[in-house]
Amino acid sequence: MERQVDDLVEELYPSLQEWRRDFHKYAESGWVEFRTASMVASKLASWGFEVKAGREVIAEDARMGVPPLAFLKAQEQRALSQGAVAEWIPLLSGGFTGVVGILDSGRPGPTVAFRVDMDALDLQESHALDHAPAAGDFVSINDKMMHACGHDAHTSIGLGLAYVLSQSKEELHGRVKLIFQPAEEGVRGAKAMVEAGVANDVDFLFACHVGTGIPLREVVCGTHGYLATTKMDVVYTGIASHAGGNPEEGRNALLAAASAVMNLHSITRHSGGNSRINVGVLEAGSGRNIIPNHASFKLETRGDTSEVNEYILSRAIDIIHGSAKMYGVESQIDIVGKAGSSDPSPELLPYIRAQASKVKDVASIVDTTSAGGSEDATYLMERVKQNGGLASYLVFGTTLAAGHHNEKFDIDEEVMKIAVKTLALCALHTHELPLSKVNA
Amino acid sequence: MERQVDDLVEELYPSLQEWRRDFHKYAESGWVEFRTASMVASKLASWGFEVKAGREVIAEDARMGVPPLAFLKAQEQRALSQGAVAEWIPLLSGGFTGVVGILDSGRPGPTVAFRVDMDALDLQESHALDHAPAAGDFVSINDKMMHACGHDAHTSIGLGLAYVLSQSKEELHGRVKLIFQPAEEGVRGAKAMVEAGVANDVDFLFACHVGTGIPLREVVCGTHGYLATTKMDVVYTGIASHAGGNPEEGRNALLAAASAVMNLHSITRHSGGNSRINVGVLEAGSGRNIIPNHASFKLETRGDTSEVNEYILSRAIDIIHGSAKMYGVESQIDIVGKAGSSDPSPELLPYIRAQASKVKDVASIVDTTSAGGSEDATYLMERVKQNGGLASYLVFGTTLAAGHHNEKFDIDEEVMKIAVKTLALCALHTHELPLSKVNA
Amino acid sequence: MERQVDDLVEELYPSLQEWRRDFHKYAESGWVEFRTASMVASKLASWGFEVKAGREVIAEDARMGVPPLAFLKAQEQRALSQGAVAEWIPLLSGGFTGVVGILDSGRPGPTVAFRVDMDALDLQESHALDHAPAAGDFVSINDKMMHACGHDAHTSIGLGLAYVLSQSKEELHGRVKLIFQPAEEGVRGAKAMVEAGVANDVDFLFACHVGTGIPLREVVCGTHGYLATTKMDVVYTGIASHAGGNPEEGRNALLAAASAVMNLHSITRHSGGNSRINVGVLEAGSGRNIIPNHASFKLETRGDTSEVNEYILSRAIDIIHGSAKMYGVESQIDIVGKAGSSDPSPELLPYIRAQASKVKDVASIVDTTSAGGSEDATYLMERVKQNGGLASYLVFGTTLAAGHHNEKFDIDEEVMKIAVKTLALCALHTHELPLSKVNA
Amino acid sequence: MERQVDDLVEELYPSLQEWRRDFHKYAESGWVEFRTASMVASKLASWGFEVKAGREVIAEDARMGVPPLAFLKAQEQRALSQGAVAEWIPLLSGGFTGVVGILDSGRPGPTVAFRVDMDALDLQESHALDHAPAAGDFVSINDKMMHACGHDAHTSIGLGLAYVLSQSKEELHGRVKLIFQPAEEGVRGAKAMVEAGVANDVDFLFACHVGTGIPLREVVCGTHGYLATTKMDVVYTGIASHAGGNPEEGRNALLAAASAVMNLHSITRHSGGNSRINVGVLEAGSGRNIIPNHASFKLETRGDTSEVNEYILSRAIDIIHGSAKMYGVESQIDIVGKAGSSDPSPELLPYIRAQASKVKDVASIVDTTSAGGSEDATYLMERVKQNGGLASYLVFGTTLAAGHHNEKFDIDEEVMKIAVKTLALCALHTHELPLSKVNA
Repeated sequence: MERQVDDLVEELYPSLQEWRRDFHKYAESGWVEFRTASMVASKLASWGFEVKAGREVIAEDARMGVPPLAFLKAQEQRALSQGAVAEWIPLLSGGFTGVVGILDSGRPGPTVAFRVDMDALDLQESHALDHAPAAGDFVSINDKMMHACGHDAHTSIGLGLAYVLSQSKEELHGRVKLIFQPAEEGVRGAKAMVEAGVANDVDFLFACHVGTGIPLREVVCGTHGYLATTKMDVVYTGIASHAGGNPEEGRNALLAAASAVMNLHSITRHSGGNSRINVGVLEAGSGRNIIPNHASFKLETRGDTSEVNEYILSRAIDIIHGSAKMYGVESQIDIVGKAGSSDPSPELLPYIRAQASKVKDVASIVDTTSAGGSEDATYLMERVKQNGGLASYLVFGTTLAAGHHNEKFDIDEEVMKIAVKTLALCALHTHELPLSKVNA
Repeated sequence: MERQVDDLVEELYPSLQEWRRDFHKYAESGWVEFRTASMVASKLASWGFEVKAGREVIAEDARMGVPPLAFLKAQEQRALSQGAVAEWIPLLSGGFTGVVGILDSGRPGPTVAFRVDMDALDLQESHALDHAPAAGDFVSINDKMMHACGHDAHTSIGLGLAYVLSQSKEELHGRVKLIFQPAEEGVRGAKAMVEAGVANDVDFLFACHVGTGIPLREVVCGTHGYLATTKMDVVYTGIASHAGGNPEEGRNALLAAASAVMNLHSITRHSGGNSRINVGVLEAGSGRNIIPNHASFKLETRGDTSEVNEYILSRAIDIIHGSAKMYGVESQIDIVGKAGSSDPSPELLPYIRAQASKVKDVASIVDTTSAGGSEDATYLMERVKQNGGLASYLVFGTTLAAGHHNEKFDIDEEVMKIAVKTLALCALHTHELPLSKVNA
Repeated sequence: MERQVDDLVEELYPSLQEWRRDFHKYAESGWVEFRTASMVASKLASWGFEVKAGREVIAEDARMGVPPLAFLKAQEQRALSQGAVAEWIPLLSGGFTGVVGILDSGRPGPTVAFRVDMDALDLQESHALDHAPAAGDFVSINDKMMHACGHDAHTSIGLGLAYVLSQSKEELHGRVKLIFQPAEEGVRGAKAMVEAGVANDVDFLFACHVGTGIPLREVVCGTHGYLATTKMDVVYTGIASHAGGNPEEGRNALLAAASAVMNLHSITRHSGGNSRINVGVLEAGSGRNIIPNHASFKLETRGDTSEVNEYILSRAIDIIHGSAKMYGVESQIDIVGKAGSSDPSPELLPYIRAQASKVKDVASIVDTTSAGGSEDATYLMERVKQNGGLASYLVFGTTLAAGHHNEKFDIDEEVMKIAVKTLALCALHTHELPLSKVNA
Repeated sequence: MERQVDDLVEELYPSLQEWRRDFHKYAESGWVEFRTASMVASKLASWGFEVKAGREVIAEDARMGVPPLAFLKAQEQRALSQGAVAEWIPLLSGGFTGVVGILDSGRPGPTVAFRVDMDALDLQESHALDHAPAAGDFVSINDKMMHACGHDAHTSIGLGLAYVLSQSKEELHGRVKLIFQPAEEGVRGAKAMVEAGVANDVDFLFACHVGTGIPLREVVCGTHGYLATTKMDVVYTGIASHAGGNPEEGRNALLAAASAVMNLHSITRHSGGNSRINVGVLEAGSGRNIIPNHASFKLETRGDTSEVNEYILSRAIDIIHGSAKMYGVESQIDIVGKAGSSDPSPELLPYIRAQASKVKDVASIVDTTSAGGSEDATYLMERVKQNGGLASYLVFGTTLAAGHHNEKFDIDEEVMKIAVKTLALCALHTHELPLSKVNA
């Protein structure tokens, strides 16, 4: 079987590259992946997958950080003008850009799921000639949207995996579920898929990422230490007045925000583990001589555990409202992203190692590495584990032209081959997995 | 009549000096002027005044900044051991140390009131030999209580005035009312006398101060520009915890106080006039490695007008409670002092000038000067003016050995003669005043 | 002479309106008044004035708040495309948009100067149909530039005055100097004209404003109480880093700015008079999960006197640098505007009153009013007074459709007639002024 | 040998109790352990130890948090009046209260050192009858000094160990060094002993503590995770002025301190591990209406590693000086305590376990536990390890009446027997230790 998978992927490689460059050129940020998702759905359907998309896989109220409706509408039009597959758009419309493809072998066996993400960052891509996408004419043409974290490759890997498995259906047992998630950046999308029940029937879940500092041809079987996190947008609304003429009539939203910032960063540490807090963006006021009536800021909290994160969050909310009260301004807090912490299931690591070791391009295999940031695949992983399943988050190393989230980020596309091969084998050898986990 | 007053005062001068030095030696701070008040009451009675003291002239709930009961009790004992007139103590007990003496001429005429204050400062007096009270053996023997603002002289002036008027009763018309107020320092006592109705029947009110930078033998007929002010004590109560071991269990009162201080000083100015705010004392925490569960601070607000002061005060209260809310600590605010703003009645200034000009020791007379600080005689003045009366705040200049509130403060006692003479004439010539003001 | 002036102005009124509406439509903000200044220069020259423009009347280093060079260049092209008089552009190029016109009578007499300002605000004008310029088709066509403070009328008044005086040259004594100042908004331009020597030879200076709450047909002879002010832009530059992964490598410019804001607003008041401080705009950070490496804020200080303003300014500079030091970030402060305080010369007020009283349209004349804000004409006034001259700042009332700096600001144009008539008489009757002020 | 040690200790137990209760009654805080140290020195000498004390074992400049000279002098007198051994006082005078006793077997072998600490806390002991020392008449008679952390027991254990080893000298190899350290509370004393060279010749170091939550009869062979820490005292000196009259003349030390506190707690976390910062005590200002010219505060920083602690410390120092600069006040920082992090030498743990297992009173043995706080024995341990030696920090469990640093803290004295027995065996069996560590 390794041979068959290897041949299929080598043959598919030009398509993997083509897909990835196409997604790269038409980069779409979170909740507006209309073109990407429609193409994914269309291809999955053409390969014999049962396809679910839109509200069936995205719980409306559990979405976080959704852009305004007008923006969603405009982006939908943009996607159509850029070649979105029109028949799928009605399902996706309004920011329901998740897709799930199911392939049932008809044979007994577990449900094995793979999760990839599809969204780009809100970043203007470099047009410098030393940046391969620019030189190669697949630089993003969408303003302030760029695949600078490799999700274009993730989507292509998901498609490649779908294709390979559709061609290997005879070898499959149980069911395969391919989860294409929107809005991972800002950890906004996974919770809505979990709430829609996408992970409820999953026995084994494999999520993955490319890059992250791991060298090409190295595979990491599991990632631990994702920090629990919450993302918030805060708006303060005060009263403007002339700073020289009648300052006492104003209610100063900028001062309230400065006070909140100072006090937020002063939250006492928790003995239960590391924590973080950052106000990353602040904008306030309209003119030098006007008492500012508006301030908005974006912040995030993190913690080694959800308990630590919730502690920081709870203190932060008191501070945000307390500072508003001090200055007589109105405060509004929007939770725009949230992720937990989820370590890989130890039982799954040797299985992944075994599959990766069958892939000839793989040069080294590492059991686990430690993550620095946050990831909302943890929501899917936790749901699977709650139901008695196993889950892990793999990393496939690749050479990076510049760091993640940099305007010149680029990958060595060879990583896509390694990922598709490894994951395909993970799907095909589930009889090697602990039986107690199988829905027999 | 000028001659008669002049003779009486010159004859009385040794007593004025003796009284003042006695009060200086047995200095008593606000609300514990048991010895002083009892002696005042006793003397007034002996000179034929109707005397009211204690709760009759002090409204209990309107008192501000009253010390704890245990301290009041201990001071009462201290006063008795230092020669307080025992028969008056029951009335004064518990911090009701105000005295009012009334002399009714039996003839038609207005009610003319004079207000002096009796309290010392919470200050340790210098024992240096270049400090006259130390050299002259009348330095304060009461720990951390010192007459460093001249109220010892004020009380003596009030007594001298009482004596002179009692000797000139045949020349009087209407009634004379001598108001001996406790707890002027910290502007704590006048409001309680106003609320007790002390000023309700007053047609003309003369308050006064010695010193304040005015040279000896100069008389200022009225003082304008007293800043409205409020004095507050704030206590924050949080939860202590070990700063290394379990910091998250604490609620940090010190941080809440630091935040309050920063934000209090940031209150936006008012276009209606100058304002001030000052947190003058802050104490917090119990140990370097303990999350502080206690913080207390003393602050004051001021404004050119009561409106400006109330604006600052209102913003301050929001900030104090808002900062507590931010840190999850309990907040308690005590208003421990309050004074308004009250300008002299213009109609009264020429009258005062006329009387002062009859005093041979007076070298120069100024209509008005501008005050820098605050004074709760303004409460009495405002009440008189509300009822259609006239009021002014005089200053009698004197040579100062050191500034007010300094540990070496001392006066030239000659000022007492000038003050008694001027005020006695003000009491005796009320027929020169506008008739519409007279309770005829 | 009054009759002659009156006739001339009535005849000129259609031109005054036409000029003002033209300037309104082609509104140009501070330092880019290329079209306006070139047209002013051209007209003055055509009426026989000696014209000085550009670097001769604008000291390069004394300019404040000059936009970046690229913007200046683009605006110069914009001005040329909108009908700027090309021959004058080389002199004005690079942001030297001041113009001075001199008319010498050839007869002995004083130098009488008039100062008007030419710049628009950075404001988007309303296109609502209830806004007369929109309805009348002279709404500003320049993006985010709008004459919302009446400087279009001021420029027209200056031109009208020039025309009338050129027609009345036989009646003139001494010299007339018309000063057309750029960049009054943000008090950026006057200092550069003073430093270029524009005011050095002036005996009598008349500056003026329309509106400001004064009713139509009322003339105010002088304005006192302009607040001394300083405008500053601050930039903090820190080091970015990932807020989750390696926060310790960052240097947080946003926190430094928040701390600066808190402490700036906490500057202790000055007993010498009212003061103000306001941070009106703050922008910081680039992403929620990035330690912010950039912060910029705009602030202003004010004081009743220059001493008070300098005190606040000096404390503010310490705080701005001190907060940067706390956070290890670089700080840069640009002074982008500055004005002093200058009261009208008392000797000049009766002269202005006398001239205004000869204008039949004038319904009432007021000696002085109190200003609420700041004005850099004070620089020119102070220089004139330092040299023994007299100066005043007049206000010509007019009906306003909305307040100054509002997107629907509009005036009753009749005020231009009143202003030109009054100022022309002020120029023509200088023999009535105190002789000691005349350069005889 | 176990039998001999066991017998000796059982016999000695009444003395151990007596000594401990005596030290408890005459509790002496850091750097004033004159009575304790003199008695230790005297006993060691009487048992045949070579005794070094004072400046020979305490490097003057490396002492931290030494009280003022007047206090040292007064305490020296107090110690003499309470039975200090007079002949040793001259060496200890001035706060050099360290003692080292050396017992040389004359046989080849390593230098084995034991470190105990002698100081009490600045705490008022409870006199409640449910507090055994109060009931048993050995409650501390020294005001605000109490052995609430068990150092009285530590000193007794050190003495007991000295006695047992002096009686077992024939069984010893190499040298034994008993280190009696002053001023462990506030981590002030160890560095001065290290700088004096006390640990330079040590091959194996055993430090120990009683209690810390470990049950009686349990022995912990090593403690890891001591947090690196720095203790600082900060004084700000500004300029006082009247808050109403001339606030601008003041330089506000209280505001500077509030700003420092806010910003200190805002220091960004370090990715290298947990950190802490706490301003535990703050005092500022002298009167409500005075701009405060004085502020002082006590703070501590901590970190999982010295690198993390140094990072926090370095940022803190910038903030302390930066905030002073903002307010124009003088700042002074005193480092009053410092400790590092030092994990136990793994090679030593089985040796300690082996010895403890020979002690019949020991019920359970644990390899390592994790510490919550900080300990300056780490300085001695690090020095030993730098020279190729081995070191560990043991804990001997005991039942506590109340937590460490509580006014009712008390121990079960039986722990002293277990500690002396275990440590004596550690001294006597060094031939079982790795040979490479032996100075042969």
